[in-house]
Order: sequence, then C-alpha cells, then structure tokens
Amino acid sequence: MRRTSFADMNCSIARALDLIGEWWTLLIVREAFLGCQRFGEFEARLGIAPNVLSQRLSRLVEGGILQVTATSQSGKALAYRLTDKGRDLHPVIVALAQWGDRHAAAPGGPPIQLVERATGMPIAPLTARSAVTDQPLRPRDVAVVAGPGASDADRARLSALRAQEQAQGRPMPAEPAPDACQGNRR
Amino acid sequence: MRRTSFADMNCSIARALDLIGEWWTLLIVREAFLGCQRFGEFEARLGIAPNVLSQRLSRLVEGGILQVTATSQSGKALAYRLTDKGRDLHPVIVALAQWGDRHAAAPGGPPIQLVERATGMPIAPLTARSAVTDQPLRPRDVAVVAGPGASDADRARLSALRAQEQAQGRPMPAEPAPDACQGNRR
Repeated sequence: MRRTSFADMNCSIARALDLIGEWWTLLIVREAFLGCQRFGEFEARLGIAPNVLSQRLSRLVEGGILQVTATSQSGKALAYRLTDKGRDLHPVIVALAQWGDRHAAAPGGPPIQLVERATGMPIAPLTARSAVTDQPLRPRDVAVVAGPGASDADRARLSALRAQEQAQGRPMPAEPAPDACQGNRR
Repeated sequence: MRRTSFADMNCSIARALDLIGEWWTLLIVREAFLGCQRFGEFEARLGIAPNVLSQRLSRLVEGGILQVTATSQSGKALAYRLTDKGRDLHPVIVALAQWGDRHAAAPGGPPIQLVERATGMPIAPLTARSAVTDQPLRPRDVAVVAGPGASDADRARLSALRAQEQAQGRPMPAEPAPDACQGNRR
C-alpha cells in the first residue's frame, strides 16, 4: 500500500524517502550491494512475501535504482543489478548500518561488519566533511542555505532559522558562497 | 499503523529502520537538526496531522532519539531535542540529502544546501573511508565479514557470499573461516 507521495515536498530528503523510504526497499538495496541478483535470492534472504518483493523490485526498477536484464535466452531468468543511481545509495546504507551497529544492535553485537576489502579492517565511521579542508564536521558545523530550487517560503523559513541560530550563538556564514548553489552534485 | 517489526531481524540496518524507517520519523529528525523543538513548529513545518506527529514524536522519545523537556513552569510547553543517539543520525540525514540532491531533486534544483558553517562552502559528498588510510572507498572496496553477533545462518550466508565474490574476482580479506584459506588471488 502506498502512502501519500512526498515527491512534491520541496526537499531532497523527502524526495529521496519517496523513492527509497519503504523499509523493504532499502533492505533490497542492501542485498543488491551484497551481490543478490535473482528474485529467488532476494526472497530467500529477506524472507519477504513474493508479491511484496515483486512490487518493491518494480518500484526500484521504475525509480532507476535497479536495472533488470534477462540472463537466459528464454528471458525467464532475470537479474536485478544496481544502476549508478543505485550504487550512489552506498553512503545511505553504510550510514544506516553504522548507526544501527552503534545504537540498535542485538544483544550479541552486530551480525556483520563492514570492512575495507583490501585490509579487512573495519571502515571508518561516516562523517560529514569540509570540502575545503577535508576535516570532519560536527552537526553544528553544518548549516543550511537556500539552494537553486528554494521557494519564497523556503527562503522565509531559512531567514527565520538564521535569526534563531544567531540568537543561539551559531551564526550562519554572512553570505552563501558564490558557488554554494552548485551544491552537492559531484 | 505499525507494520511488522524488523527489530528481530539480525541486521543493524533492519533494526535501524525499525526505529527510524518511517518517512515522517526521519523528516522530524531533519527538522530537529534544523532547530525545531516545539510541537507546533514541527506541525507547521511538516504539514503533518497532529495525531501522526504525536505518535511519531512519542516513538522518537521512546527510542531515545529525542528527549522531551518542559520549558514552562506549568509543564505545558514542551521542547523536543535530539539526544546523542539522535545526533548520531546526522550522517544518515546528510547521506539522504546528498543522494536526493543528486538523483531526486525537483526540476529547479535542491531547495536547500548543506554548507560548512565556517566557510559557507557546500560540504563534501559523504563517502565510506578507510580507517587505515582515510582514503575514500568505493562500494566494491567495502566487504562484509561476520560480526560478534553473527548466527550460524549469518556465517553460512557470508561463506556463500565469499564464494560468489571470489568467483566474480572480488576476493574477501583473509578471515578465520575454513573456506577463506584457499588462495586469495588479487
């Protein structure tokens, strides 16, 4: 059952959640990162009802996160693979896994660990970083400014936020940097 | 309406999603990072029905992600603030925002930009990093190994995954597992 769509909310997080916000959806993406490709593999690993799995896989294909290819001449054997857009979800999956390991692990500890393939060492905790100095940033070191798609309402809200932050002793940068509008697109 | 709980799935991602996997939940956390504290502020900014907001706030308090304090003597004015556990969700929020900016932004572009407070420059794209060299890791550079909470089923599954990855030319790091002792060619 689909809930009201968040896609028309003018916020990248809401729009991202609209595509990937269903629990099963992110767990399917997790399995795809772990090498799952076939319907039956996803079904067995997730213990998910076939009709739900079918729906979610279709939605991931429609959303451009998975691509499906026939792997037999008859076209009956299908493989679901991550697209570039899907692979770009890696930081989301890693961030969720690390938070879960730290704050929601089962009593015995995390069942799996993410390690650097070359060394076998656990990967570093994901953290926001300065694009200028490459140094880790705490949440309070990160601010929000209007982007190219900001509506008048967004700008009004950001002004209110700026006033509130200044009152709390966390001044925003005086003016957004000239190229701030290029944003996080790599 | 709560769906079946994922908390008993032995996976940190599933358990994290069980706590924060509702769309509204993460949007509430996003607003908390932006300085929202009062019920009415969340309500106005998210356009969320009061009964849904009330449910979600309670769940976030129960889950230890928000803490609620009375800000007036009568106890009627309540402030919801992020706990340390809640603040640790920052990488999840940033990862979602960056993916959304890149892949799910509205036609006019992202409405807000995450910038480094000190410089006003956009923050760097979040990426997994080596704890050894601090260098960025691609998804293929990250592997999974059994953690302290791994069940027999988890270990069996990781063995199967290891065999599959070796067949694909992506050897896992040497690990104390019977089948990992055969030559790891790189």
